[in-house]
Amino acid sequence: MALAEAHLGAEFNKAGEAPVVDNFVYVLCGDGCLQEGVSGEASSLAGHLGLGKLIVCYDDNHITIDGSTDLSFTEDVLKRYEAYGWHCQHVEDGNNDLEGIEKAILAAKAVTDKPSIIKVTTTIGFGSEKAGSDKVHGAALGASDLAFAKKALGFDPAQTFFVPEDVAAYYKSVAQASAAVIATQRETLSAYSSKYPAEAAELARRTKGELPANIEALLPRASGKEVKPAATRNLSGNVLNAIKTAMPELMGGSADLTPSNMTELKGIPDFQHIRTGKGSYAGRYIRFGVREHAMAAICNGMAAYGALVPYCATFLNFIGYALGAVRLSALSHFRVIYVATHDSIGLGEDGPTHQPVEMLQALRATPNTYVFRPADTNETSASYALALKNTHAPAIIALSRQVVPHVLASTVEKAMLGGYVCFDTADQESLNPTAAGAALVLAATGTEVSIAIEGAKKLASTANVRVVVSSFPCLEVFEKQEESYRKSVLPDGIPVISVEASAKRGWERYSHAQIGMDYFGMSAPAPDIYKRLGISADGINELGTKVLAFFAGKEVAPVPVNGHRW
Amino acid sequence: MALAEAHLGAEFNKAGEAPVVDNFVYVLCGDGCLQEGVSGEASSLAGHLGLGKLIVCYDDNHITIDGSTDLSFTEDVLKRYEAYGWHCQHVEDGNNDLEGIEKAILAAKAVTDKPSIIKVTTTIGFGSEKAGSDKVHGAALGASDLAFAKKALGFDPAQTFFVPEDVAAYYKSVAQASAAVIATQRETLSAYSSKYPAEAAELARRTKGELPANIEALLPRASGKEVKPAATRNLSGNVLNAIKTAMPELMGGSADLTPSNMTELKGIPDFQHIRTGKGSYAGRYIRFGVREHAMAAICNGMAAYGALVPYCATFLNFIGYALGAVRLSALSHFRVIYVATHDSIGLGEDGPTHQPVEMLQALRATPNTYVFRPADTNETSASYALALKNTHAPAIIALSRQVVPHVLASTVEKAMLGGYVCFDTADQESLNPTAAGAALVLAATGTEVSIAIEGAKKLASTANVRVVVSSFPCLEVFEKQEESYRKSVLPDGIPVISVEASAKRGWERYSHAQIGMDYFGMSAPAPDIYKRLGISADGINELGTKVLAFFAGKEVAPVPVNGHRW
Repeated sequence: MALAEAHLGAEFNKAGEAPVVDNFVYVLCGDGCLQEGVSGEASSLAGHLGLGKLIVCYDDNHITIDGSTDLSFTEDVLKRYEAYGWHCQHVEDGNNDLEGIEKAILAAKAVTDKPSIIKVTTTIGFGSEKAGSDKVHGAALGASDLAFAKKALGFDPAQTFFVPEDVAAYYKSVAQASAAVIATQRETLSAYSSKYPAEAAELARRTKGELPANIEALLPRASGKEVKPAATRNLSGNVLNAIKTAMPELMGGSADLTPSNMTELKGIPDFQHIRTGKGSYAGRYIRFGVREHAMAAICNGMAAYGALVPYCATFLNFIGYALGAVRLSALSHFRVIYVATHDSIGLGEDGPTHQPVEMLQALRATPNTYVFRPADTNETSASYALALKNTHAPAIIALSRQVVPHVLASTVEKAMLGGYVCFDTADQESLNPTAAGAALVLAATGTEVSIAIEGAKKLASTANVRVVVSSFPCLEVFEKQEESYRKSVLPDGIPVISVEASAKRGWERYSHAQIGMDYFGMSAPAPDIYKRLGISADGINELGTKVLAFFAGKEVAPVPVNGHRW
Repeated sequence: MALAEAHLGAEFNKAGEAPVVDNFVYVLCGDGCLQEGVSGEASSLAGHLGLGKLIVCYDDNHITIDGSTDLSFTEDVLKRYEAYGWHCQHVEDGNNDLEGIEKAILAAKAVTDKPSIIKVTTTIGFGSEKAGSDKVHGAALGASDLAFAKKALGFDPAQTFFVPEDVAAYYKSVAQASAAVIATQRETLSAYSSKYPAEAAELARRTKGELPANIEALLPRASGKEVKPAATRNLSGNVLNAIKTAMPELMGGSADLTPSNMTELKGIPDFQHIRTGKGSYAGRYIRFGVREHAMAAICNGMAAYGALVPYCATFLNFIGYALGAVRLSALSHFRVIYVATHDSIGLGEDGPTHQPVEMLQALRATPNTYVFRPADTNETSASYALALKNTHAPAIIALSRQVVPHVLASTVEKAMLGGYVCFDTADQESLNPTAAGAALVLAATGTEVSIAIEGAKKLASTANVRVVVSSFPCLEVFEKQEESYRKSVLPDGIPVISVEASAKRGWERYSHAQIGMDYFGMSAPAPDIYKRLGISADGINELGTKVLAFFAGKEVAPVPVNGHRW
């Protein structure tokens, strides 16, 4: 959020005038928060970026659930924050020294080129009988200790929900002062709107989360046999660069994989502190460093702040390092776009540490999360179009390292339905379209769509049947289509084989048989791995033959997504 | 690994004699590694534990994939490690000062009460034309630059795969010296075996990964109507405490949730540095702190070291923070036991941030991973028995916060089949067992087994049919059973409804209809949430009635796990 504030201030505030974007960001945290790796990652980056308006108040009460922090957390926290480049202060008696806390906050505000941390040493459960113990971490005090604490703090234990008059009066004065601040801020905004109507309109649009009117027209499209094969990560880079000017709210970067993720916004400067000579707060390409978890968490903060559409990137498998924060994107209804390249065994030699297997299923099982796996230019554009329009959900766009052919029948419009028929052997003169109806559907995603098309041709000519291939750039979107449309893509009465270079598990929802993985990948050139694992035209032909034989003369129950709507 | 060495040394070495467990652990890492949160978590704990035999050589070459570390990583790394309590050194010219590196390693070895980090400043691609640039991070030099580098380093560029004689001779001498070290170590071990045959036999057993002979006999069992309801997390705590003495290799702890995870080994001291006064290296309960990712990674290290069976604990949802390392347990074939409590909406008031939805599906889709969700005492014991016997795979044991009744028909032996029939309305005199064959199967796991039993009773009396409930403490184990057994649990020809308070998605593999979640949970007392979401006897009755009506007179296709074996 502090990063968003710094950027939007640099973008919208006018020199010599009252700022329209201007706030501090306060964090209240405890010992546990500062043990988690994600806070270390984020704090290191905040120090590098010199986010002077970020102020962390660290409640150093020495107690976590297991007991004293002496059990596991004896590092020198402030020294660590000094190492991160933060401004550090310590209030030694946080139980009583309220003035000291206020002074420290004022001092923190005055330091404008560094984030600040204020370690406030306190006693947990101050005033209660259980003060200083883990017994007050997660449980209510209970009636007798509540009375004890009230007495200790100068209250009448017989009175409940009692607010002393001077406290009530003080809070009223705070409300009045705050109302005055809001009034001033409204005047500032109103003056800004008169003087800079275009900027004000832009800020209003972005704050509402609305997209620029022309955005779909800017998305790359392709058609025809002359379209060159490409890696979908490159097609993603094309989309980002096609919309970067029209969408100044698009802000993001990569966890140190820029040249692999293809996330650079060409010509757009880095978001950096001006002292680095490598950019400024007006820049909007973020160098997150090798910090996947903080990257995702920071994007959540940017989305929460508003007026920005954050995107971030790593390899699909390393979304696993960020999963806690990715889940929070979904739970918090944040439009964060995750660019997840190297999305399968197709990445080749890096091998099983880098090759996702379970990740797509994990993300598809996460509520309010859209998982895209586009196959070509049109599907990649459709994925971004849908991701941008889903203003209250994150999107994971899984993209390939390896080059794949264009899908001849694809269009952005068809892909935006989440799934569509992209190939039919009946349309191929070289094949024998004897059967009136299709005998089998191949359901594929991303880089396996072109493999499925080859497999369909092979199976059609081997078995002398009509085979249809459907591409599913987004299963969540497909599931939202009307039943009649869904059944046109996955028709009742004929078997479906799914083809995805990822866990088979989960595909039972859409198919009768699966081509995929239930083991880890391997290190080799991508074509060799695909061949070895049978994710190939031959593998499709082999399984397809068995499936056709199994169902010959039998009734085929519809796949769950089509039937059983109880 | 350094933690394992410290513990096993304390356990097996004898004062005044040559140590049988005695090695340093070296880490070679780069800038990227030290940006990741997991290394920060682990390093903070290593400093707290004073692991003096851990030596990290940090290749400070200032280059990551995006370019200079000036882009994102400008913190003072050594100062941070000082804050963690490490011994820190800097070799400023790592390109040339080999003697300085050796001296630093010797100094690091001499510091026995702190882990050491040696920052070695180097030039990436030293000697090549692209020296000092990110161009040499991930790509081969190419012929011309290879020649350039060879020349720069004093070699003849025309010679390939050339090893100078003095280098060959030096390596031979290293091999000889190493052989001598091994011979000495063997003698030490042999002398130890003569003098301490019991300890030597124990170390040998544990190094082979073998379990103590009597372990299954120690597992808690329960039967009869008098068994008190219990939370499965408590039953897990009973197992750990039942085997702790027989299994001294059992070593682990919690990410600061000991009283919630029920992972304390009563009477077993903490693994702590003796200076803390809170335990010693001979202790085997680990206080991991609020560091889930490092916790899982440390357990991988312990498993890799050998002679230990590591376990660790957090809430099931926070396995997501550790997922990178959990996946490595599976990929590396490590027997790590993950105790994952608070495994559903049943945790109640903590709400959706704590309530897993997708986690079980994510873990079930991970290859070589066993996911257990026991329902009672016998199933919990069976889960541990299987987890301990699977010497080359991790186990995740999902456990409840809330109290559930004992499953009357359960036994450890049945549960060890992964799935079994645990209730049949035909056996209930109060219900009308008119139908000869079962009309419907309810497939449930963990805390939903008792709900399924109540639902079966309700549906049986409403629809006047026979309903069977099957419990699945481990689907991966169930899938390995013979087809005939699987079909006795999930018979062909009758519909199956799954009941699990987690993502429905994925259950299409085992059921025709699902009771579960495709949204996040909520904050309320557990019974209220279950009722609201329809994961209840009423919900089962309602869906069961619809499913029976749908399939009336229709053929029921078998669920994938039973049929379609192509």
